[in-house]
Amino acid sequence: MPIQKLKVGMAGLGRIGKVHVHNFLHQTPRAEVVAAFSPDPAEITWGRQHLEPYGVTLYDNYDKMLEHPGLQAVVIGTATSVHAEETMKAIDRDLHVLCEKPLSIDVEVCRAVAQKAKTKPHLKVMCGFSRRFDDSYREVYDKISQGMIGRPSIVRSQTCDKYDPSGFYVAYAAWSGGVFVDMSVHDIDLTLWFMGEDSVPKSISAHGITAVQPELKKYNDYDNAVGIVEFHNGKIAYYYCSRMMPHGQEDTTEVIGTEGKLSVNINPQRNFVNYYHNGGITREVPANFHGRFGGAFVNEANEFTACCLDNKPLPLKLSNAVKAVEIGAYLQEALVTGKQIHFDEIGRRIEKAQL
Amino acid sequence: MPIQKLKVGMAGLGRIGKVHVHNFLHQTPRAEVVAAFSPDPAEITWGRQHLEPYGVTLYDNYDKMLEHPGLQAVVIGTATSVHAEETMKAIDRDLHVLCEKPLSIDVEVCRAVAQKAKTKPHLKVMCGFSRRFDDSYREVYDKISQGMIGRPSIVRSQTCDKYDPSGFYVAYAAWSGGVFVDMSVHDIDLTLWFMGEDSVPKSISAHGITAVQPELKKYNDYDNAVGIVEFHNGKIAYYYCSRMMPHGQEDTTEVIGTEGKLSVNINPQRNFVNYYHNGGITREVPANFHGRFGGAFVNEANEFTACCLDNKPLPLKLSNAVKAVEIGAYLQEALVTGKQIHFDEIGRRIEKAQL
Amino acid sequence: MPIQKLKVGMAGLGRIGKVHVHNFLHQTPRAEVVAAFSPDPAEITWGRQHLEPYGVTLYDNYDKMLEHPGLQAVVIGTATSVHAEETMKAIDRDLHVLCEKPLSIDVEVCRAVAQKAKTKPHLKVMCGFSRRFDDSYREVYDKISQGMIGRPSIVRSQTCDKYDPSGFYVAYAAWSGGVFVDMSVHDIDLTLWFMGEDSVPKSISAHGITAVQPELKKYNDYDNAVGIVEFHNGKIAYYYCSRMMPHGQEDTTEVIGTEGKLSVNINPQRNFVNYYHNGGITREVPANFHGRFGGAFVNEANEFTACCLDNKPLPLKLSNAVKAVEIGAYLQEALVTGKQIHFDEIGRRIEKAQL
Amino acid sequence: MPIQKLKVGMAGLGRIGKVHVHNFLHQTPRAEVVAAFSPDPAEITWGRQHLEPYGVTLYDNYDKMLEHPGLQAVVIGTATSVHAEETMKAIDRDLHVLCEKPLSIDVEVCRAVAQKAKTKPHLKVMCGFSRRFDDSYREVYDKISQGMIGRPSIVRSQTCDKYDPSGFYVAYAAWSGGVFVDMSVHDIDLTLWFMGEDSVPKSISAHGITAVQPELKKYNDYDNAVGIVEFHNGKIAYYYCSRMMPHGQEDTTEVIGTEGKLSVNINPQRNFVNYYHNGGITREVPANFHGRFGGAFVNEANEFTACCLDNKPLPLKLSNAVKAVEIGAYLQEALVTGKQIHFDEIGRRIEKAQL
Repeated sequence: MPIQKLKVGMAGLGRIGKVHVHNFLHQTPRAEVVAAFSPDPAEITWGRQHLEPYGVTLYDNYDKMLEHPGLQAVVIGTATSVHAEETMKAIDRDLHVLCEKPLSIDVEVCRAVAQKAKTKPHLKVMCGFSRRFDDSYREVYDKISQGMIGRPSIVRSQTCDKYDPSGFYVAYAAWSGGVFVDMSVHDIDLTLWFMGEDSVPKSISAHGITAVQPELKKYNDYDNAVGIVEFHNGKIAYYYCSRMMPHGQEDTTEVIGTEGKLSVNINPQRNFVNYYHNGGITREVPANFHGRFGGAFVNEANEFTACCLDNKPLPLKLSNAVKAVEIGAYLQEALVTGKQIHFDEIGRRIEKAQL
Repeated sequence: MPIQKLKVGMAGLGRIGKVHVHNFLHQTPRAEVVAAFSPDPAEITWGRQHLEPYGVTLYDNYDKMLEHPGLQAVVIGTATSVHAEETMKAIDRDLHVLCEKPLSIDVEVCRAVAQKAKTKPHLKVMCGFSRRFDDSYREVYDKISQGMIGRPSIVRSQTCDKYDPSGFYVAYAAWSGGVFVDMSVHDIDLTLWFMGEDSVPKSISAHGITAVQPELKKYNDYDNAVGIVEFHNGKIAYYYCSRMMPHGQEDTTEVIGTEGKLSVNINPQRNFVNYYHNGGITREVPANFHGRFGGAFVNEANEFTACCLDNKPLPLKLSNAVKAVEIGAYLQEALVTGKQIHFDEIGRRIEKAQL
Repeated sequence: MPIQKLKVGMAGLGRIGKVHVHNFLHQTPRAEVVAAFSPDPAEITWGRQHLEPYGVTLYDNYDKMLEHPGLQAVVIGTATSVHAEETMKAIDRDLHVLCEKPLSIDVEVCRAVAQKAKTKPHLKVMCGFSRRFDDSYREVYDKISQGMIGRPSIVRSQTCDKYDPSGFYVAYAAWSGGVFVDMSVHDIDLTLWFMGEDSVPKSISAHGITAVQPELKKYNDYDNAVGIVEFHNGKIAYYYCSRMMPHGQEDTTEVIGTEGKLSVNINPQRNFVNYYHNGGITREVPANFHGRFGGAFVNEANEFTACCLDNKPLPLKLSNAVKAVEIGAYLQEALVTGKQIHFDEIGRRIEKAQL
Repeated sequence: MPIQKLKVGMAGLGRIGKVHVHNFLHQTPRAEVVAAFSPDPAEITWGRQHLEPYGVTLYDNYDKMLEHPGLQAVVIGTATSVHAEETMKAIDRDLHVLCEKPLSIDVEVCRAVAQKAKTKPHLKVMCGFSRRFDDSYREVYDKISQGMIGRPSIVRSQTCDKYDPSGFYVAYAAWSGGVFVDMSVHDIDLTLWFMGEDSVPKSISAHGITAVQPELKKYNDYDNAVGIVEFHNGKIAYYYCSRMMPHGQEDTTEVIGTEGKLSVNINPQRNFVNYYHNGGITREVPANFHGRFGGAFVNEANEFTACCLDNKPLPLKLSNAVKAVEIGAYLQEALVTGKQIHFDEIGRRIEKAQL
């Protein structure tokens, strides 16, 4: 009996879209990419060369792709601004959805998507927080669950990109939602995973600078920022995000418990090589997220596919994706306004006058 | 235009065969596994479940599989004792071959295979030394080529397996060719790659012990062995192989040059996690070759496929595979006899009386 | 001609006092410990055994010790509460002073001491920030000075002690000034050193928890705290202090510049040993500050002595010690009140109403 | 009661002599350097400046120094060629002796010294194998003693110096005894310590090259050498020594047991700093033995002093120092002759004809 494969349509063939379509096409045995959409003629041209020979039908219209015969799931890797709309349209057509993070930089829009997804519980709608599929973070989660660090109490987590001199990030800042929403949202998601998804923020502080890209200021953004989230359950997370690393991608996380500590990527490295020379011993570092998380994206594709085909629960809930954006947006607000934000025990914001 | 795929037949569905068939089936976009052979009914049963659904025809007869319509290439992962015969039969039928190392533990047989392969230069016949496809070793080769360590002069390389209490390796020793042929052959192949494939041994010494598996002695084998190969070009390689590691697989290589040094896997690690506890800081280690070299096997499958389809030269020559076994066999002889072996400048053995 | 030695009197023979007196007595060739004072009979008994045989006169009265014939310098390692008074008395008697940090937990008192010291510029009055004498931090300072990381922009620094189940730190919290004054003051001092001693805070946030010692709350203190200091010169420092480490002392610092980064102690280790076992690879960590900074205290003793004897400028200014306490006290205030604190460009506090 | 100090005379004020005299003078509270000898006027001049001010009497005649009033012990750091004679003279005068390794490069001379020392058992006569006093090696010994690695079975140990372009080592080779006697003797001593001082060699092989200093050949020496010693108790040690390291001193040791492994200095480092730059992450390495073993020399001075004053047994026996030189000399012979050497179970050499 031939294997049943999930028929997948890919939306977006840019940087992240190419990663996803490659993984679903070539690294996910139980999936079959039947269609792909891009509004960008250059990306369509790329698709003619790299996707059509494998039987993928190309579309320059998202709605049309949704009508592709037999389509069962959509993977969304387009611009953030259309994530929510495309997700909702797919839900309307009874399709499973894997949407790149974030659903939206607008918390209300995120909530609306989550609300809609709830109306069709038979669909698998997932926001792609890739670190949830990384072997190292999973081992951290498992070891915490086994009680190996006692009660997790402090999370330190950073997302730090290699400096990109092209100016890309300045333009990108216009619509990225800001560094805490764009970058630290991963660290916030990890925090909720490791500390409990019911953790309620008590107070939030953030500070930032523009060390190498002063033009970011016109978009109220920063190239380096530090924030603290204190939770009502007696736990603290603190974050650093930067677009200024000289040496490569450095995404590091520590979870400090009452009886132990776990770290991920304290010593970033591209491979197993050390070079010994008259200046010392040097190892290289991945240049970007793909060098660090390439395998996690493959896991994500395979597990999403299995959840759809076997009707298993998704490994992460959409409500958490909403919550991560929410906390990210508060951090961004604290950063831009220079003011601490406070919340009561059920998460309602407390205005300054009340303090 | 649909993509042209290499039609592959898999021989052997045991430990290493499962790795290869998985990679060619699911991780090699340009390959299509059309057939698989195993003499073992249990493996055929496994194939019914895992291969047939993907369109793979199963055979319990190797010769029959070779007649599978349209077959272009064979991947051989059966027992070492039939590697050579199966390779030769495939060559006879004008099929490309990727054969697991070693071709044979008998140097003469290896030479015969290489000789036969030469008669059909349009075929791609490759012996699978997986480390040649590992990112870290490739970076070492590239850095040496760029002159970053001057003249490579000393290679230290070890292949050390996690201790297996099952007794498997004692039985295996009956026909493995001995630890230097079975394990260090990888290190010897790396040596030839890094130091020059024309390096001619000048003298060879080896010493071994049976620290945990004294029964190995009946097969003239050892669970720990150290050997030195001195070459006529003023270079030295020294090897350590062991089946006694408590912590996992630890395959480490250093290449020391006149102006720099490169190491691979000085700090073995399973992933990016460190665990901090009241006994210190601990990181885990891969339990087996797959944890360290899984990605290299995938690269190997993809590159072998591309060489066949595009008629490109293979990244490693069959003659080197022969030479690696040859040096391994000399080390094993030096180990078993307790005597140093000497060679003249064109590689002819010098008898003791001549010294 | 016999060598001229600095005649030193030691005040305090407790934990830190024993370290200092050992170093001045046995590891500082140009110093001679001639006297020692302790108000504690048990410490005097210890001194009879360990100091008297080397010619040290013991005193149970500080003022009397100051009258010891020929005394040139005093090293103060008594309780923090008497640091300032003892320092001022020594200045009054025209003695050089090396005082353990902090001068006082009261910023006004610190300022008074610094003021008094200014009146006798021929005296060497130094507050012992031991990390200033540590080889690694010095290399960081040198590399920054050479421009190797561009403009230092972000400091991350933590002081984390091994968990002490004895309850010592709860009692200690009554008069320690709080974790930011007691622990992070080292990190603040490093920040001023690396980022410029003229850096003016712009805003300060802090959050803390009591994860393992809830009794600390009665002293308004915490066992884990995180704080951020944003400076007017476009730089940020963020701190973590903890008394809960399971594995040992972990004092880590990173200085991130526009073109490079420097870290100190990213991989804490007690010595050069790794232990490989069936759970992985483990290395141990120093249990306390002495295991990490023992050598720095020896350097401190020798350099202070040389500055006194040769009338050279001290390597750190008393005004910085005051500033570090000042910033520590603001962090502690932000921590306890749960409110951000703001400052104008000349460092004057801005009240909330003004924001 | 004033402390009783050991009155020490220092022989030799060259590279290693300066280290010893500094340690005994300034880092060894219970020792008092009363005299120092050097045949070299430049060293005497150095002594006038650095030793006389501390009360040290200088001698240009060794015999005269031995007559210094009250002298109790001699530390010998002169040229290797006079070690034995000076040690014997000191014994004759009833003085304790700490002699730099090796006693002699001639095994017979070593034996004669050990024999003489036996005649005066009240004297402490020690050969300074500094690694015996290094914290890391001591922890390895302790962990082995606690059974943490089962039965130690394989030792890998290397002594690798930073390349010295001055030509010093070529001249030095004329009288150093060869690399195995001069360098690997440390590794051999460690082997005996860790594997049992009664280990009897069964066979020895060695190979070497001259990669950067071909002139060494005229002294029958090598700049890189690898040797294996197989013992009758089913254990193996293998050694690498080199004078060609580009990055610094790299002395690494691994002890592999049946149930665990211990390593020392797998990751050489000068201090706790990592430098992150656009080529990766770099740490520096000690340039010489002092950067790695400075502390061990201080321990050695203190413990030797305590043994003399308190009449305690020395931590290492003179007979081992002899045995280490003996094995080193056999390795050197195997290296130079290109022939394996064999021994019977009580250590008598077996000639080739007998094999």
